[in-house]
Amino acid sequence: MRMVDLIHKKQLGKALSTEEIQFMIEAYTEGTIPDYQMSAMLMAIYFEDMTDQERSDLTMSVVRSGDQIDLSAIEGVKVDKHSTGGVGDTTTLVLAPLVASLGVPIAKMSGRGLGHTGGTIDKLEAIPGFHVELTQEAFIELVNKYKVAVVGQSGNLTPADKKLYALRDVTSTVESIPLIASSIMGKKIAAGADAIVLDVKTGAGAFMKTTADAENLAKAMVKIGNHVGRNTMAVISDMSQPLGFAIGNALEVQEAIDTLKGNGPEDLVELCLTLGSQMAHLAGIGKDLEEARGLLKENLENGKALETFRTFVAAQGGDPNVTEDESLMPKARYQIGVAAPKDGYVAEIVADEIGVASMMLGAGRATKESEIDLAVGLMLHKKVGDRVQKGETLVTIHSNQENVKDVEAKILENMVIADAAEPLTLIHEVITEA
Amino acid sequence: MRMVDLIHKKQLGKALSTEEIQFMIEAYTEGTIPDYQMSAMLMAIYFEDMTDQERSDLTMSVVRSGDQIDLSAIEGVKVDKHSTGGVGDTTTLVLAPLVASLGVPIAKMSGRGLGHTGGTIDKLEAIPGFHVELTQEAFIELVNKYKVAVVGQSGNLTPADKKLYALRDVTSTVESIPLIASSIMGKKIAAGADAIVLDVKTGAGAFMKTTADAENLAKAMVKIGNHVGRNTMAVISDMSQPLGFAIGNALEVQEAIDTLKGNGPEDLVELCLTLGSQMAHLAGIGKDLEEARGLLKENLENGKALETFRTFVAAQGGDPNVTEDESLMPKARYQIGVAAPKDGYVAEIVADEIGVASMMLGAGRATKESEIDLAVGLMLHKKVGDRVQKGETLVTIHSNQENVKDVEAKILENMVIADAAEPLTLIHEVITEA
Repeated sequence: MRMVDLIHKKQLGKALSTEEIQFMIEAYTEGTIPDYQMSAMLMAIYFEDMTDQERSDLTMSVVRSGDQIDLSAIEGVKVDKHSTGGVGDTTTLVLAPLVASLGVPIAKMSGRGLGHTGGTIDKLEAIPGFHVELTQEAFIELVNKYKVAVVGQSGNLTPADKKLYALRDVTSTVESIPLIASSIMGKKIAAGADAIVLDVKTGAGAFMKTTADAENLAKAMVKIGNHVGRNTMAVISDMSQPLGFAIGNALEVQEAIDTLKGNGPEDLVELCLTLGSQMAHLAGIGKDLEEARGLLKENLENGKALETFRTFVAAQGGDPNVTEDESLMPKARYQIGVAAPKDGYVAEIVADEIGVASMMLGAGRATKESEIDLAVGLMLHKKVGDRVQKGETLVTIHSNQENVKDVEAKILENMVIADAAEPLTLIHEVITEA
Repeated sequence: MRMVDLIHKKQLGKALSTEEIQFMIEAYTEGTIPDYQMSAMLMAIYFEDMTDQERSDLTMSVVRSGDQIDLSAIEGVKVDKHSTGGVGDTTTLVLAPLVASLGVPIAKMSGRGLGHTGGTIDKLEAIPGFHVELTQEAFIELVNKYKVAVVGQSGNLTPADKKLYALRDVTSTVESIPLIASSIMGKKIAAGADAIVLDVKTGAGAFMKTTADAENLAKAMVKIGNHVGRNTMAVISDMSQPLGFAIGNALEVQEAIDTLKGNGPEDLVELCLTLGSQMAHLAGIGKDLEEARGLLKENLENGKALETFRTFVAAQGGDPNVTEDESLMPKARYQIGVAAPKDGYVAEIVADEIGVASMMLGAGRATKESEIDLAVGLMLHKKVGDRVQKGETLVTIHSNQENVKDVEAKILENMVIADAAEPLTLIHEVITEA
């Protein structure tokens, strides 16, 4: 088999066979196919797309390129969740204990973030004592015992994807549905998921700027998942404005705790119930999504979700009293309000730009080497559709530097106040099969 | 300027600016743009094409990537000819002295061949004493004195094209009209041509298998040439069967001599008159193509073309008596006839396969390192449309090995004899402007 022939085949719009895709990914991972041939192939895929079979084959070749986590020692259906990423997205911190409180095993491997705020793993480190590095055995033991554990990624998962992603980044081939879908699904499957719930974001703060693009990606992933024997569902949710009120690491942990106490922001609660009911349903809880949702809602109200969170935190060495005492978490030196410049309604909160503002404070990483400041970030007080009066606080900046003029300017530039505005739709679509 | 942004621009079907193309080719030649980005760009160009302006810009960037031959010390319009390559193509050996015999300066740089037979430079070495390596000064002096000189390529012409071609070859991006056209035109312009005549071949033995593809390529090149100030014309000629009767190095020199004596094969003569009249006309000879053709025909008949050939050969150290004494050139040890297996008409002589048969004898190079045997090759006795009788000689094999069973088999397989067949059209189209 010669790579140049495979490129030619794809260039003519023909489908590559299972063997051809396996050969290509294996040889590329080993380095016997050079980058310059793979980038030509990626561009040909960008233009000529891939069939459903090719997408599944690519996903499984990516899975086979490295280690695969074996979660079979955990009883029950292991459901994983993946979000395509946004600003102020605290869902994992709520969902993991919430769904686990119904007895569903949540064995979550999570990453550190590159972007507006840290990843789930960074956020959890705002809890004093919490440690994210566990052996495979300890991880499985905790899930079997307490139904939930969250650890940092270990092992050599999907090296093909890492190499492909680095190449796509510099050859303008990131934006290709088959390539994005197989990358995400490959990682989830290699991490041991039996079933997968996808939160595909759409809008200014998301990778997919339009609902149509998000829908295409979601359907592609659901199709791959079901095709390779992993029950998969997806939600298309809004990320034109940040999710919830908190943007920042400790701030988001606090927001997650509030949510688990039943006092969460309306949009965050709604998204958690929607995703959570899919996760619970895929794990066999409730006769339908509606019933699963009812059970989750109950556990938010009766304290069981919060209790699971406390147990989970304690099991990983963290101080469970963070749920009762905010001061246990890092706190920024300065709290500075940003006032509304005029009366009106919030018409827009441009999510990605607000994310940049939080990164300017130090809440996120610009490069892999950046240090995160877990204390800093932004608390929104208004969301799109809310009425505001001139002088009222729109946002509180949590900062460790006193001068935040540039952050303030960035925020005011990206919170548009108009004469009238309607709240945004949060859940655009629920995709249970493609 | 970042290459990834240029790739993205082309990917969206937008035109790259003159500055962007210059940056890209310069940086790629220097090695600051890596192969993997260039191959993604080449694939995007394959799918999204280039505008006329982009094609001209690419051509000129390729020209500027290396040395440019300065022929300004030669009086008159320097017209170059380029053939896209075929089997048994002896035209340059005829055209150079023929057109020069009208006083048009022919300063020809030519290559060694990779393929069925050698290149023009290899063929000329079949003439005893002929040397193809001249200094730039000697080359120009000969052209000024005798109107014609043919030398091997020297200097670092179009290094960008060499690098691009090697990359295209392994990334399935050879077959792209803007890339082929700018590659050919760049080389001709760097070699110092004021005006260019293109012989674009079509059919089994050519790179362009269909007349429509050949026409697209020819028009693209004529457009580029005229756009960058080099008068350019093109002919689309048939290469479904070999041109003339001779395939092989010394054999083709002999055929060129016969043609210059007025005894050439009909198709070769016709192609030389068509291309030659374009070359002469572009150099300002004759009020139209027809008049130029008449003058060329005269010089074939009155001996002036042959005389120019003899002068040219002598000036480059060769023995001019080859025109009168065949035995001065290398001769193969065995002449073996291939007999017609039945009565009928020659319906097909598959050019590329017949070329392979000649390469099996050693007439061409399979790799850059192969040694050419100048003596061997094939002499056809029949062309498509000719009547043959069973037992009549179709082809004479000139070989230095006695056993030629495999060559014979290859020939018989690719000379189809049918109950009826018409001669082929040689000149499909003459393109004087695009």
